[in-house]
Amino acid sequence: MIAIDDIARPDQAIRSALIHKIDNLTKPKGSLGRLEEIALQIGLIQQSLTPTLTCPQNILFAADHGIADEGVSLSPKTVTWQQMLNFVRGGAGINFLCRQHRFILKLVDAGVDYDFSPTDGILDCKVRKGSRNFLYESALTDEELELCLTRGADVIDFCKEEGTNVLSLGEMGIGNTSPSAVWMHLLTDIPLVQCIGAGSGLDKAGICHKYEVLQQAVERYAGDVSPLSVMKYFGGLEMVMTVGAMLQAARHQMLILVDGFIMSACMLAASRLCPAVLDYAIFAHCGDEAGHRLLLDAMGVRPLLQLGLRLGEGTGAVLVYPIVESAVRMINEMDTFAHADIIKYF
Amino acid sequence: MIAIDDIARPDQAIRSALIHKIDNLTKPKGSLGRLEEIALQIGLIQQSLTPTLTCPQNILFAADHGIADEGVSLSPKTVTWQQMLNFVRGGAGINFLCRQHRFILKLVDAGVDYDFSPTDGILDCKVRKGSRNFLYESALTDEELELCLTRGADVIDFCKEEGTNVLSLGEMGIGNTSPSAVWMHLLTDIPLVQCIGAGSGLDKAGICHKYEVLQQAVERYAGDVSPLSVMKYFGGLEMVMTVGAMLQAARHQMLILVDGFIMSACMLAASRLCPAVLDYAIFAHCGDEAGHRLLLDAMGVRPLLQLGLRLGEGTGAVLVYPIVESAVRMINEMDTFAHADIIKYF
Repeated sequence: MIAIDDIARPDQAIRSALIHKIDNLTKPKGSLGRLEEIALQIGLIQQSLTPTLTCPQNILFAADHGIADEGVSLSPKTVTWQQMLNFVRGGAGINFLCRQHRFILKLVDAGVDYDFSPTDGILDCKVRKGSRNFLYESALTDEELELCLTRGADVIDFCKEEGTNVLSLGEMGIGNTSPSAVWMHLLTDIPLVQCIGAGSGLDKAGICHKYEVLQQAVERYAGDVSPLSVMKYFGGLEMVMTVGAMLQAARHQMLILVDGFIMSACMLAASRLCPAVLDYAIFAHCGDEAGHRLLLDAMGVRPLLQLGLRLGEGTGAVLVYPIVESAVRMINEMDTFAHADIIKYF
Repeated sequence: MIAIDDIARPDQAIRSALIHKIDNLTKPKGSLGRLEEIALQIGLIQQSLTPTLTCPQNILFAADHGIADEGVSLSPKTVTWQQMLNFVRGGAGINFLCRQHRFILKLVDAGVDYDFSPTDGILDCKVRKGSRNFLYESALTDEELELCLTRGADVIDFCKEEGTNVLSLGEMGIGNTSPSAVWMHLLTDIPLVQCIGAGSGLDKAGICHKYEVLQQAVERYAGDVSPLSVMKYFGGLEMVMTVGAMLQAARHQMLILVDGFIMSACMLAASRLCPAVLDYAIFAHCGDEAGHRLLLDAMGVRPLLQLGLRLGEGTGAVLVYPIVESAVRMINEMDTFAHADIIKYF
């Protein structure tokens, strides 16, 4: 089984030196707000007073979900592979954001129910063609769970070799707000109804139906509420692979930018397996999906933005990248009061 | 007197075509939240389905304030010119942000109590060396008010010639949260105490003293609550110049990124003179200065971010620029459902 107990919190010894540096930049103390917190966090992760961000990548894990057969999503399953090809062509939301902020976009097939061509440039990590329908059976087997975690970690090793120290993680998978809602419910004990939202655009009746299906699935579930059991039974493949990636990124002291509801559910599971992973995470935004705010609160984390996003793909995480970059520039490029010969005004 | 009645709202005829375009991009309808609103706003301003952002500039107006003699600020007046020289050297907060997002930084001396050298590269628009102390007399004369408005407009004409269609406006001026608070109080009728905050870092006693000084000034004020009267009596020079700049920017159909509390107070005054100016404004953030949220509410506007910023200089406005750029990229670069051959899923 993949190791999960070897991730340490960043050494805190450098904290006071980081705070001293940030407080002596030419600005009233604390006046750059969250930028100052981010600079401190990255300084801790990198154990450096002059942190850097190198070779940012957005890793987009994709898979299909058996539960989609129950009509829990507005969109047909085929949209998963159609959108993957849209990503390949460069016409989707995540594409313009990656171009704008010079992110490498890695598309990873964790389990799409479609045969991509090798020339599509999609990383083939397919574990199976879609997870099983968790209304009737476990979405994944033990072996599939393990494979997902390992392959997620492998993708991050690859990024590490490429020189990456900051990652955005995103997803594509019609139906994946459903397992996310169930993960959230079982791992936090927040009532299921508060974990369920409109996904890509369900109306009220659609949300009611989704609730009934998921409620039934949860009632039939005979497993325990340990993260691994929940992940195995409810899937999906791209989500478990993301958890593996998150753990490996923390192991490599990378900064992890967390996108929307689904990625937050993955970070919840990762942090239940290993709480230290949260020290490496920046939560990009609180999206419009009902439950996202509660999910963030359950982890005790504060998102950077609230812009009504609910697209996924990593879009929100890449969108906030320049703000993270600003924090790094702040600590590296701003002058100090003493050096600038300015009366320190706080 | 400077004309203020010639600013029109953007023609709304193109609105439905813009909405149609945004709704047919390959994403669930509305799933890019505020980005979709920004794209619509810029499309309206530029009357274009393919808007662009050209030659962004941050104009930083600086001046001193007579009211600073009353101990309403933690920082001594000398910090105004010291920080201006820090801007010249490139070591301040606004510098790294301008470098990051490739903004031209225009430093404008509206009325700093200091003689800069021509080699500092600061635009000399000095109307006088600091405004008068409004606890005892009018901060500005009629002529000075007029000069500020005209020179602010002139700076924007200069930007227009340089090809700029998007501006951030910022300020430097020790003591300027005081006139901002009074402008806000008199132009919105919100109780003065709710308009006053810590500025660059006053403690509770300091805030109390600031309140007493400003309350006394307001009680002694015999003028009316028309924007021009309030602007003249309470100054400051950099703020009135900013109002002139905002009006001219709207006149030239430029997009205006509004920074923190002081810039919001200027936009309040500008919008009281000419409501159409708001159609050209994006409010970058809600800062930490008490009253900023109330001020934004009074104008009925929603800021993009809330990151605890309170530095001024235009920092918050330049910080959000990439998000505005993302909105423009979205409408220009994303593919449509029909063209991408994807089932439209909403």
